[in-house]
Amino acid sequence: MSNTFGTHFRLTTFGESHGAAIGGVVDGCPAGIVIDRQLLSDDMARRHAGNAATSRREPDEVELLSGIYEETTLGTPIAFLIRNSQARSDDYDQLKELCRPGHADYTYLQRYGRRDHRGGGRASARETAARVAGGALAKMMLRSSGISIQAQVAESPAPADHDSSGGIITCTIDHLPAGIGDPIFDKLNARLAAAMMSIPSAIGFEMGAGFEAARMSGSQYRDAWNSDFTTRTNHCGGIQGGISNGMPVVFRTAFHPVVTIDQPTECIDANGNLKTITPGGRHDQCHLPRTVVIVEAMAALTLADFMARTNP
Amino acid sequence: MSNTFGTHFRLTTFGESHGAAIGGVVDGCPAGIVIDRQLLSDDMARRHAGNAATSRREPDEVELLSGIYEETTLGTPIAFLIRNSQARSDDYDQLKELCRPGHADYTYLQRYGRRDHRGGGRASARETAARVAGGALAKMMLRSSGISIQAQVAESPAPADHDSSGGIITCTIDHLPAGIGDPIFDKLNARLAAAMMSIPSAIGFEMGAGFEAARMSGSQYRDAWNSDFTTRTNHCGGIQGGISNGMPVVFRTAFHPVVTIDQPTECIDANGNLKTITPGGRHDQCHLPRTVVIVEAMAALTLADFMARTNP
Amino acid sequence: MSNTFGTHFRLTTFGESHGAAIGGVVDGCPAGIVIDRQLLSDDMARRHAGNAATSRREPDEVELLSGIYEETTLGTPIAFLIRNSQARSDDYDQLKELCRPGHADYTYLQRYGRRDHRGGGRASARETAARVAGGALAKMMLRSSGISIQAQVAESPAPADHDSSGGIITCTIDHLPAGIGDPIFDKLNARLAAAMMSIPSAIGFEMGAGFEAARMSGSQYRDAWNSDFTTRTNHCGGIQGGISNGMPVVFRTAFHPVVTIDQPTECIDANGNLKTITPGGRHDQCHLPRTVVIVEAMAALTLADFMARTNP
Amino acid sequence: MSNTFGTHFRLTTFGESHGAAIGGVVDGCPAGIVIDRQLLSDDMARRHAGNAATSRREPDEVELLSGIYEETTLGTPIAFLIRNSQARSDDYDQLKELCRPGHADYTYLQRYGRRDHRGGGRASARETAARVAGGALAKMMLRSSGISIQAQVAESPAPADHDSSGGIITCTIDHLPAGIGDPIFDKLNARLAAAMMSIPSAIGFEMGAGFEAARMSGSQYRDAWNSDFTTRTNHCGGIQGGISNGMPVVFRTAFHPVVTIDQPTECIDANGNLKTITPGGRHDQCHLPRTVVIVEAMAALTLADFMARTNP
Repeated sequence: MSNTFGTHFRLTTFGESHGAAIGGVVDGCPAGIVIDRQLLSDDMARRHAGNAATSRREPDEVELLSGIYEETTLGTPIAFLIRNSQARSDDYDQLKELCRPGHADYTYLQRYGRRDHRGGGRASARETAARVAGGALAKMMLRSSGISIQAQVAESPAPADHDSSGGIITCTIDHLPAGIGDPIFDKLNARLAAAMMSIPSAIGFEMGAGFEAARMSGSQYRDAWNSDFTTRTNHCGGIQGGISNGMPVVFRTAFHPVVTIDQPTECIDANGNLKTITPGGRHDQCHLPRTVVIVEAMAALTLADFMARTNP
Repeated sequence: MSNTFGTHFRLTTFGESHGAAIGGVVDGCPAGIVIDRQLLSDDMARRHAGNAATSRREPDEVELLSGIYEETTLGTPIAFLIRNSQARSDDYDQLKELCRPGHADYTYLQRYGRRDHRGGGRASARETAARVAGGALAKMMLRSSGISIQAQVAESPAPADHDSSGGIITCTIDHLPAGIGDPIFDKLNARLAAAMMSIPSAIGFEMGAGFEAARMSGSQYRDAWNSDFTTRTNHCGGIQGGISNGMPVVFRTAFHPVVTIDQPTECIDANGNLKTITPGGRHDQCHLPRTVVIVEAMAALTLADFMARTNP
Repeated sequence: MSNTFGTHFRLTTFGESHGAAIGGVVDGCPAGIVIDRQLLSDDMARRHAGNAATSRREPDEVELLSGIYEETTLGTPIAFLIRNSQARSDDYDQLKELCRPGHADYTYLQRYGRRDHRGGGRASARETAARVAGGALAKMMLRSSGISIQAQVAESPAPADHDSSGGIITCTIDHLPAGIGDPIFDKLNARLAAAMMSIPSAIGFEMGAGFEAARMSGSQYRDAWNSDFTTRTNHCGGIQGGISNGMPVVFRTAFHPVVTIDQPTECIDANGNLKTITPGGRHDQCHLPRTVVIVEAMAALTLADFMARTNP
Repeated sequence: MSNTFGTHFRLTTFGESHGAAIGGVVDGCPAGIVIDRQLLSDDMARRHAGNAATSRREPDEVELLSGIYEETTLGTPIAFLIRNSQARSDDYDQLKELCRPGHADYTYLQRYGRRDHRGGGRASARETAARVAGGALAKMMLRSSGISIQAQVAESPAPADHDSSGGIITCTIDHLPAGIGDPIFDKLNARLAAAMMSIPSAIGFEMGAGFEAARMSGSQYRDAWNSDFTTRTNHCGGIQGGISNGMPVVFRTAFHPVVTIDQPTECIDANGNLKTITPGGRHDQCHLPRTVVIVEAMAALTLADFMARTNP
């Protein structure tokens, strides 16, 4: 189901940008995990930071509704809620009948026959706030096994005036034991790829040496053993046959630039008429800084799903 | 579950390289699809071609066991079998206690505590024969909706003597209607990424402009509308918000070189002792030509899964 | 996952009896279903009625948070919330270290290692309020296909003073077209059985002639055809081979009596010490009247799941 | 998916009665389980026994194709095959255009638009041979945890000449530890109910005191504690809140009589014309004796699914 991520540790998100609230339910988090509200609010703030340019200044306060007793998880579903307090829906009236270029307006209409046009509706990047909250819960669980996740912007050209830019984020998972992952179709690398490519504006993914590996010879590429079962290089990015080998798991995700830019924009209506509008509100020129914590969240959710299976 | 791909049109594969057989079960194929045995045997041959250098010359004959009556699908599971007729297991005796570099030997041991070391066991590329057979069934179903899939080698350096090489395969899906795919976590691009990254030796994936898009400005990147709902460019690769927009779906997958090469190879045993062996048998120097049909098969299985939902 | 029901039309519920809130998320409801708030509040009231004897008088007001625009579903997740406004947790202090007979206290402890003892925690019958809300959404969808569901108490002995009673509820689904259901493991009757047996205190289930059919001869049992494809009898309860045959679907569910009764009750602590307590608060002597709408809700969720598959 | 049972320990079955073969794939069986071929062939023989009256005398030899090395499971999928050697399809020619009463002929046509009419096709009781084989593998896994399952005929009226009869089978699961099962929707009792109701001709299910519990008072019904955490009675059948409590798990399944009987039988064609035929071949008058091992198999598959989650 499209709005649920994972099989054992599962996050279901809900909410439209200008509805009453967004939020999520985490099911499958083991009992006994201590809640770290600081980590949760820090991660929410990291996603919000860099956001100063947008018209939206919601505090993104997360209310935890269930699944927790005496600040410790019960093993039952953890629901959380983020109210949409400052929705100024009128800004979007001109978009009610129009589909913007590069956005999901047209494809949602084709998929569902109708849509909530206000602020992107369900396709809004606001949905990622629920991912970050769920990811923070996943991090709390992973931390109890010593696993840590760190992402950072690897490459991001400075956007020109009245334009936007994308970039590349690298992510490293440390202290993941060997033997995590599944062969054949649910390879850890395949699951990470799906997780990353599900982030709005993600457009490329690579493990370890990635596309460069396609230009290496086999004798260069293959990672030679040390006698302690580490490897001398890590071209494979810490995964072999879909299963972690005990080395750091390393991958990179490419993001295309924000498609809402401060320029006249040619939209299309249902009859195929093109109409130029000027987008209202203000928007990020580059979303990479605030995407870092989303990358971490999706990596954490992916790993928590694999780890929860053995610790239900 | 690791050995099943898909939710509605599902392929489950089974089999070790040197066991009695490999094969699969397709569940969820709609009733009424006419079986095209020529397509099936052609695709099996495409995977086998370029394979002349290997010690294995099995005909890879696919026996269809169920789910078909009067050469038409019944809507019930379609099981198929490929016998392993020429397994020469003794070639692998020296590997019983050793883990090769770049292979899944060590990670399978960590995951399961034991493995079938003969010919790579379950991790053998032989498993992809079942994917190609399942993919051929998916293609038959997609063809009934007019959808076609075409992959080809885009880049592949010529391997040096006694060494191996990888490369990049591009794939195009034509005539996919707009509105196919799901938002949020099951985006069509996310599912394609997982499908491709599940192929042995896949190490990178990108949609449309891919990693290059990370260096574009927003005004360059976003695909402008034509009045017939096509777009003037296709940087996004035919998918917006996880849902197809009616343009060709275009993506590229990078593959690292084959890790079995005709050179002395340092392996490791369970105690951390390093031991140099010379691999037996002969192996592909470059697997890209025969991987093309596997890319197509995984793309077909991904799309059939989305299409089967609306046509059960 | 235990807290999610269904595959295509899916209800995930959350919440403990004395936490901040209970609620749920419906994912997979098709776009374009008009919301009937009267039906929702009527069904919530039906569950609440007969409840006068309990200490709890919460209005069970359902707040719809997402997935709806202009009172019509968007095809995106519909989240809803019911606040726990009147939780008097102190009543339960004596139960913190004790497991009651017939309750899930002991089994939750064995399963999770800890529990929220207040008011039954997650195992409270309060969780069924979320089922009724989700079921009301399922009914709205089914009604658009003309399908109706009606349950009623078939048998319920009058409870004696200071004691409780159970009973049997019958349910009929009308206007379900032939061809709904799946063969082999996901038979419509199997799914209905699981749905009913998941209701707190359910202890038996039968289709059509049910246990009586075990005493019939084949010539008595088998339902003879009329020439309009109806059958002269309906011993099978409207399902053959797991698939609806166009006749009314009829089944009965048996419920054991409420296990909290107004009598001294011998509980057990973690060390195996038996201790007699007198339950606080007041409780239903017979829960059958308010269980009727829960039976309908679970039947509606089961059918909506089958119907949503063909109408995503 | 209809042809797959379970989430962690999963059996997928395939095959039509008169196709090339039936069989199955077990995915999720942990590595390290020793194969007991005697148990497998004994269980297959138990299903076949009592079968002497039928025209079919296939040995039902199970060929294990994968997932096993040195007679021990690898953790990879275990596929198995049972050839259909003696299919006499001509016996069924008169049924090609007719739907029999009480059979799935009509409902399969409504569901799929076409069917394999020979010997019941996919709806044939022959499919249960694959369940018994999968169940034997599940028993091997459960036995390694000390869990045993025993079913027997509890009630079965003697069939009259030229007629058939059904009956009731009771099943007891011993040595299941407390804490197995999930609350809310995936209750162990709900999953057992679905498992049993998926068996051909099952029509009722009850746990412990079952329908009788609907007539008990609460003070009679609730099972009082002993100080060793056993209970003095077992009216609940060993499950509270969906989770095992350490007592024997006890349930009963009712089966309606075989609907193929040695009497003139009024069938219907696609135009609603009624036509009387006399069934060819010979059939069981009572299928209860051979259904006992199918009940055990489905119970074993249900439990293996819960147990495999914690032992992947």
